[in-house]
Amino acid sequence: MKRNILTVPIQKIESGGASVREQDLVAIEEPLQIRLGECDVAITMRTPGHDRELALGFLYTEGLLTNLDQIADVRVDDAGTVIVRVVAGVKPDIDARRFYVTSSCGVCGKASIDALAASGCAMLPAGQPKLSADLVPHLPAKLREAQAIFEHTGGLHAAGLFDTAGELVILREDVGRHNAVDKLIGAAFLERRLPLHEHVLMLSGRISFELVQKAVIAGIPIVIAVGAPSSLAIETALRFGVTLIGFVRGERFNVYAGGDRLIDCTGG
Amino acid sequence: MKRNILTVPIQKIESGGASVREQDLVAIEEPLQIRLGECDVAITMRTPGHDRELALGFLYTEGLLTNLDQIADVRVDDAGTVIVRVVAGVKPDIDARRFYVTSSCGVCGKASIDALAASGCAMLPAGQPKLSADLVPHLPAKLREAQAIFEHTGGLHAAGLFDTAGELVILREDVGRHNAVDKLIGAAFLERRLPLHEHVLMLSGRISFELVQKAVIAGIPIVIAVGAPSSLAIETALRFGVTLIGFVRGERFNVYAGGDRLIDCTGG
Repeated sequence: MKRNILTVPIQKIESGGASVREQDLVAIEEPLQIRLGECDVAITMRTPGHDRELALGFLYTEGLLTNLDQIADVRVDDAGTVIVRVVAGVKPDIDARRFYVTSSCGVCGKASIDALAASGCAMLPAGQPKLSADLVPHLPAKLREAQAIFEHTGGLHAAGLFDTAGELVILREDVGRHNAVDKLIGAAFLERRLPLHEHVLMLSGRISFELVQKAVIAGIPIVIAVGAPSSLAIETALRFGVTLIGFVRGERFNVYAGGDRLIDCTGG
Repeated sequence: MKRNILTVPIQKIESGGASVREQDLVAIEEPLQIRLGECDVAITMRTPGHDRELALGFLYTEGLLTNLDQIADVRVDDAGTVIVRVVAGVKPDIDARRFYVTSSCGVCGKASIDALAASGCAMLPAGQPKLSADLVPHLPAKLREAQAIFEHTGGLHAAGLFDTAGELVILREDVGRHNAVDKLIGAAFLERRLPLHEHVLMLSGRISFELVQKAVIAGIPIVIAVGAPSSLAIETALRFGVTLIGFVRGERFNVYAGGDRLIDCTGG
């Protein structure tokens, strides 16, 4: 396990202006290069740890890899590059996805809702799985508690995969929220668990288009976040039949799309 | 002014599970294409509004434009593309920056600290300007108050440019924090105010490498954020002489780099 936290000297200013020198913990952010075959596909700023999963989740959600059997070998070289070798006969079309590649961070090309449909993503199975509305308010606390083991910095986003009984299955953290989701999807990809049709993705922050996009690609039918969704996140959820829940505060939350998967909440 | 907020129907779940149908406001997220000369440089997911400034701030911080006199014309076409035409003789080296271009969002190539130095960024003027430590705790509230005029969604990041007297000079908002900073820098670029050697950049969220990188490129010597910095954000601030302050909570805050610009805080 690579270290993902660094101790740094800081000057802490207290109420009244008193200044003390202390040590503080900050989240590490470092570039990671991802190589697929002979091609350097991307360098992403990430928090070290789960680098192979990050690379595989990135390549999967970018559509460059679709099946674990396409992969011959995944290793990290001395320079910190994740090198993914594919088996003979597999030829990822990297040039065709060159613009798309950058979509994982806000700069993107074909990464619109239509492009997502054109890339082969279909509607998620309607009305299933069911999720008890009573469970929703408990998920942020469960995510935070699990995160507390790893996180002391206040600087890491978390992505948690839950089952519909509310049990945490996978937790990943990163300075970049898209990286946290890529690590999570990469972990599921490595375990041959994709598509994740029976699971819930819980996010510590806000919900942008790209996060819903990644959920759709991984087949996750329910996305819940502590923060607010963007308009395009909601439109994408409606288009692909994702249940989108945001602003979970205490026992209250907002359902932006796909309320039919919630039970004990028939609307009013 | 383009609309940046959308009203959407939601199902609001209250304590006890009661469900009501309501209207909610969400931040709009839409792709914006940026064209420089004949070349489509990037498409970024952004909140509409200040699109010309976003494009110019992006092109400036990517190093593709360095001077307002290089620009012949900036317009937005019917499809929503910002088209930046350069004057005769100016030839931005887009291919050389192709990887770098994507650095504004976490996926990047040469975008390391060394690359930033190699691109011509120098140390910021040491020890100046001075900022009263008493001012720091007031800046988050000033940012929020100014933001409250525009923001009703909980989904927008804010970037504010302050002078050292604590007066807000420019405020920009976006679903993407890098876009909010690009809009702010683009506004200053259009007003020929760069470099911003006498100003303070205040951020509503966390501080990643790319945000400090943009501050360095725009010559902003003091960066303050409500949230935590990453390790690379701190290293970049130390390398280029940026004052980096985070975790501003009430009257308390942490100084991660460049405390010499703060007055009334001599350390202990």
